[in-house]
Amino acid sequence: MKALVTISLVATWLVLPTVIQAQRAEAPDQAPGKAEAPASPDPNLAKIPAGYRDWRLISVAREEGKQNDIRAILGNDIAVKAYQEGTLPFPDGAIIARIAWSLVPSEENNKVFGQAQSFIAGAPKNGVQFMFKDSKKYAATGGWGFAQFSEATGEPASESMLATCFPCHQPVAARDLVFTRYSLSGLAGQK
Amino acid sequence: MKALVTISLVATWLVLPTVIQAQRAEAPDQAPGKAEAPASPDPNLAKIPAGYRDWRLISVAREEGKQNDIRAILGNDIAVKAYQEGTLPFPDGAIIARIAWSLVPSEENNKVFGQAQSFIAGAPKNGVQFMFKDSKKYAATGGWGFAQFSEATGEPASESMLATCFPCHQPVAARDLVFTRYSLSGLAGQK
Repeated sequence: MKALVTISLVATWLVLPTVIQAQRAEAPDQAPGKAEAPASPDPNLAKIPAGYRDWRLISVAREEGKQNDIRAILGNDIAVKAYQEGTLPFPDGAIIARIAWSLVPSEENNKVFGQAQSFIAGAPKNGVQFMFKDSKKYAATGGWGFAQFSEATGEPASESMLATCFPCHQPVAARDLVFTRYSLSGLAGQK
Repeated sequence: MKALVTISLVATWLVLPTVIQAQRAEAPDQAPGKAEAPASPDPNLAKIPAGYRDWRLISVAREEGKQNDIRAILGNDIAVKAYQEGTLPFPDGAIIARIAWSLVPSEENNKVFGQAQSFIAGAPKNGVQFMFKDSKKYAATGGWGFAQFSEATGEPASESMLATCFPCHQPVAARDLVFTRYSLSGLAGQK
């Protein structure tokens, strides 16, 4: 935990001199250390939604760079229904979650494949992020409330950190500020 | 479709001269073309389970090499319950699904990050695979029935191809022949 706080503080210090755009891009994926994570003033953004790990899969992704993770984007029933039916904007009550893990080689799998090619999810990292849709409550940020929690401690990110989310999502305003698209698993009538 | 069949036939031809181990390792991830996919004799292994895309997430992975995909492993309720409770062997009725997509750069995301680092799920590829647990019906193959379907046509893989699955899963016999471990998203009491 001490190491995590140190790394986080160093990372914060390193980010400070960079341009705003880069700062915004990196901030959402830093797991906040205890020392820099006062509770968000909005209690809805300071509480991890119950049962989110059991939500359905929207898509997967891989981030290189400082994030260096493999990630899954999940949605609650309202969010997944909207995705599957192509409903935009997302209805109130929709919640989208982003979870992430380190990407580690699988020696077990590589033995079977006969070569080094297989990477699996390791430890959780880069926090757990949520977007909560409430067009009234979060009208000032496009109808979405943004939240992030440390994957290690469960503590919410600071208000100042969460304030960087909304501006960064502007490029996908046409998709109701949501970057991730829903991934079908088959092409011929299968879902 | 024509191109897919051609590629598949070429791929099959290329694999034939290789050693058995490599053939086994590669076979499960080749999407079978129409010409080489007679229905499996077991009707349970020739039918895609309804609603599998809505099953819960077990974990994610990245395969390089010829597979070159990003993948998600999903489970039906019986399978996920067994994972979450650490039940081994998996109970009858458990079904595990493996879906996969091409891994494509996201220019949209890269613009936000300010550098090329972001890869997302593209088109489905490498078939959709299932393991069906039935300790009696599939006693000869460790209690699991193995199935694969073309992500393009939905057609089942050939019997000869499916016969390569069971031997390849032997290294994880101690985990009831299942390679994938369940990935928690948080470390401190969160799931």
